[in-house]
Amino acid sequence: MNMQELTGIQVPVIDEAGMTRASERIDHLLMPRHALGKLLDLGRKVAGITGYDRMDLGRKMVVVMAGDHGVTEEGVSAYPSEVTAQMVRGFAAGVAGINVLCRHSRIDVRVVDMGVKGDLSDLVAKGVLVDAKVGPGTRNMRRAAAMTRTEAISCIERGAGIARGLAQEGVRMLGTGDMGIGNTTPSTAIASVATGAPVAEIAGRGTGVDDDGLKRKIRVIEDSISLNRPSRSDPIGLLAGVGGFEIGGIAGLILGAAESRIPAVIDGVISTAGAMIAWLLEPRIADFIFAAHRSVEKAQSSMLALMGLEPVLDLGMRLGEGTGCALAMPIIEAGAKVIRQMATFEEAGVSGEA
Amino acid sequence: MNMQELTGIQVPVIDEAGMTRASERIDHLLMPRHALGKLLDLGRKVAGITGYDRMDLGRKMVVVMAGDHGVTEEGVSAYPSEVTAQMVRGFAAGVAGINVLCRHSRIDVRVVDMGVKGDLSDLVAKGVLVDAKVGPGTRNMRRAAAMTRTEAISCIERGAGIARGLAQEGVRMLGTGDMGIGNTTPSTAIASVATGAPVAEIAGRGTGVDDDGLKRKIRVIEDSISLNRPSRSDPIGLLAGVGGFEIGGIAGLILGAAESRIPAVIDGVISTAGAMIAWLLEPRIADFIFAAHRSVEKAQSSMLALMGLEPVLDLGMRLGEGTGCALAMPIIEAGAKVIRQMATFEEAGVSGEA
Repeated sequence: MNMQELTGIQVPVIDEAGMTRASERIDHLLMPRHALGKLLDLGRKVAGITGYDRMDLGRKMVVVMAGDHGVTEEGVSAYPSEVTAQMVRGFAAGVAGINVLCRHSRIDVRVVDMGVKGDLSDLVAKGVLVDAKVGPGTRNMRRAAAMTRTEAISCIERGAGIARGLAQEGVRMLGTGDMGIGNTTPSTAIASVATGAPVAEIAGRGTGVDDDGLKRKIRVIEDSISLNRPSRSDPIGLLAGVGGFEIGGIAGLILGAAESRIPAVIDGVISTAGAMIAWLLEPRIADFIFAAHRSVEKAQSSMLALMGLEPVLDLGMRLGEGTGCALAMPIIEAGAKVIRQMATFEEAGVSGEA
Repeated sequence: MNMQELTGIQVPVIDEAGMTRASERIDHLLMPRHALGKLLDLGRKVAGITGYDRMDLGRKMVVVMAGDHGVTEEGVSAYPSEVTAQMVRGFAAGVAGINVLCRHSRIDVRVVDMGVKGDLSDLVAKGVLVDAKVGPGTRNMRRAAAMTRTEAISCIERGAGIARGLAQEGVRMLGTGDMGIGNTTPSTAIASVATGAPVAEIAGRGTGVDDDGLKRKIRVIEDSISLNRPSRSDPIGLLAGVGGFEIGGIAGLILGAAESRIPAVIDGVISTAGAMIAWLLEPRIADFIFAAHRSVEKAQSSMLALMGLEPVLDLGMRLGEGTGCALAMPIIEAGAKVIRQMATFEEAGVSGEA
């Protein structure tokens, strides 16, 4: 029922014929059978998403979705809430981690205000920030639902609309990033509800809370779930109860990318929570998603396992912003390129197995 | 004693001050403490190799060392020996896996004939192959030493000389690649002698031999070790007894890179066997080496563990050619860039921890 509340978002069917053509070529490539391992699996998945004749991923972009969280009142983060807006200014100035890594990997960065508390209208006026603000931060989910059902639908639809616009602009591969002080708290709540894993088992330190902070965070998440009673059978209600504006935006971005047959690469626990909402709406979305890396946050691994996604990288990262995407997207693109650009034994005139 | 047989190769001392400066900057970067995990460790290691003020890795290159192996007579590979020369022609034509991946990652490729059986002088004349041929393939190590001690020294010195030349050309980061039908056999022999692991525990299927082929390969390696009696305390003797020309070339390339303070990134089991010879000569070499990826071949993991090297990637690859380097070198470079290019909290005017 949930999917029908979202205006016109459709997840297409994977291109099985494209994957078969990719597999056939892989079997003849100039190397021992499947000797590039998972790199070839990545490329084959690209073929399923884009179709075999559209595997050139061309222009790539990481979209950083930003939002604030009322639950920071409960002391769940090592940083004050105003850092969200400050970091958005950092992204706009090009000095943050995601900027450095995307420049390195020749990936564009777009920053979206899904629900930051502060006034960022000057950045919107300058054209360095997309305004998709649903509200000035969520409500404290320990005291009330984080957002209304209408707001939850709005986040997802705005995210999908942004993906559609980027497809029009010629973007061929999307990474999802996030910024929002306190957002590992709603992400872990979503993970717990979706996977059934106890909060205490999957909650992590986020930006770096101490032992007391972690205990408090676990209690806050448990209380928020008790209060809002979210269910995995109602993903929009789950997002509304214990989610975040940027998490909904990421869910929508992923759904919109799939609609345009653009591979969506997800980053850490927040992006994975966004993917989780999309997956609960339509599990076929997993065919269109790549997991960039394994985060230090256990909640992310629990959700990846449920969706059957295996991360490309495992570098002990936990920054967010889309930084994992900036490192993994070139590897996924490499997988697509080897299938199309490497010669076969026959093309190269090399002897096969003895 | 062994190191003194090599004319003038010196492994410098790591720049501790450079690493300290990198660590200090990392502590102030615009993110929760060490939130980019191993990416920062990679960057810090670059600082130790190059010095803090020379972390810009600029021009990058993968050097593919090729050689043939007399032991292929024993039926240890799924492919005939002539494939080595055919593949070198494929590299020169730009159609192999390493070519596709290096173009993707903007890394130059240089191909070196360390000891291929066939005549490749036309490629040398065209300037697309470096001639450093020590001999037309090694001898069958199950019947005699693979090469003489003089040849072993020659491989290493030629490899080091190539690295010196590349430093002069302005190369700032080197990846090691290999091509040589049968070369997982000598590499596994080196791994077994160096680590003490039984051959049967670490031998793999290489290009893809079946169960009978694997049993035969294990017996051939065990026989070769029994015949040549190599010892880890005599790494030149180890290379001569059960090594290969390209393996010695890689050992030399790594030593020569370190000499010029150029990070050396090693690929799979063959490159790691080359690194192993270098490490047995001078264990401080590990400070100058990055392991690109974890190969499917267990012998590689056994050697990485001994050298204390942790691979950047784990993608189930087993192609060689330097393909792992082509994917990992951009990540290592990214680690260096975040340290130097990302703003600190102070520079960005962002609030620190609450």
